[in-house]
Amino acid sequence: MSAITPPSKGAATRELILERAYQLARHDGLEGLSIGALALGVGMSKSGVFAHFGSREDLQVALLDAVSARFVEFIKLPALKQPRGLPRLRAMIENWSEWGRIHQSGCVLLSAAVEYDGRQDSALRERVRQQQSAWRDEIKRAVSLAVQVGHLRADTDPAQLAFEIYALMLGLHHDAGLFGWDQANRHTSAALDRLFASYQP
Amino acid sequence: MSAITPPSKGAATRELILERAYQLARHDGLEGLSIGALALGVGMSKSGVFAHFGSREDLQVALLDAVSARFVEFIKLPALKQPRGLPRLRAMIENWSEWGRIHQSGCVLLSAAVEYDGRQDSALRERVRQQQSAWRDEIKRAVSLAVQVGHLRADTDPAQLAFEIYALMLGLHHDAGLFGWDQANRHTSAALDRLFASYQP
Repeated sequence: MSAITPPSKGAATRELILERAYQLARHDGLEGLSIGALALGVGMSKSGVFAHFGSREDLQVALLDAVSARFVEFIKLPALKQPRGLPRLRAMIENWSEWGRIHQSGCVLLSAAVEYDGRQDSALRERVRQQQSAWRDEIKRAVSLAVQVGHLRADTDPAQLAFEIYALMLGLHHDAGLFGWDQANRHTSAALDRLFASYQP
Repeated sequence: MSAITPPSKGAATRELILERAYQLARHDGLEGLSIGALALGVGMSKSGVFAHFGSREDLQVALLDAVSARFVEFIKLPALKQPRGLPRLRAMIENWSEWGRIHQSGCVLLSAAVEYDGRQDSALRERVRQQQSAWRDEIKRAVSLAVQVGHLRADTDPAQLAFEIYALMLGLHHDAGLFGWDQANRHTSAALDRLFASYQP
């Protein structure tokens, strides 16, 4: 009965707040996110911000979800255009590196994993764990597909290879931040080539 | 002329403050370090703390130096008992893993690398970069020694292998925090075995 409704003003404001929160969190981390600075940045009062997100933690979780969705979209969607198997897996890793290059000065997702890994009691930690777990499953699936089509050895353990790929992406981000992108990227590419060669049938 | 003097009361207090700061920073990171909470923890006033460390940044730098020295001591000294070459390199990595196991709930050095990698203007960032660079040089030296004694292939690039070892240690710490130590350690050990096998002469 109803026509398609445009996004409500409330949803648009929510988006605006999240976008600004993202910019702040890229610099200061999720824990450093100040509602005062955020409210100032979007020209609202603090209670205006809380009208859209019940609590600081709700805002942090919503931000994590938004960045996580953006991350998966950035890396997975363009890779689906590549043939199944190793080309698609390598395209995902290439997009992932590109995400790392763009977010050299701070990746909210990675910072969150470091910020919350020791906090047993936090709802944020549980969300980080779920997101990291879902992303690891995506890599494992891409590895399994590459095994199925015969691009990787039949005895490849997807969880093992996914861990090694993930570790190299951590190394890339770490080294890029400290020693510069070019050297970090060179070392990562060489390591990936060697890694995939060692899993070749 | 002078007898060996015991550590001064000032130096002992400095140690006490640093130790307490370390406990706080393990949980909240260096940036989250609150001088108020620290002063409370050591039963001093804030100005009492500042009498020993001129500023919050001075304290953060002193803390980084202390943890960094402890880290190198923990990993390198016991490894020197092992024969030169691969046994010594692998002993270093084993001690490094053990450091990771002990500091699962938060490693100040690693958190600092994430906290400061995007802050171009910070004296802390420069200190983190120096420390990370010095530690990478230690690994490169251990790799070079293993090449010299013929335990690793003559064409091994020490910077490349050091990067790959470092990336796996990052992966270990990351996965241990999110998915538990045992699985993370299993994946890391398997990856290290494969890595060293691929560099064997």
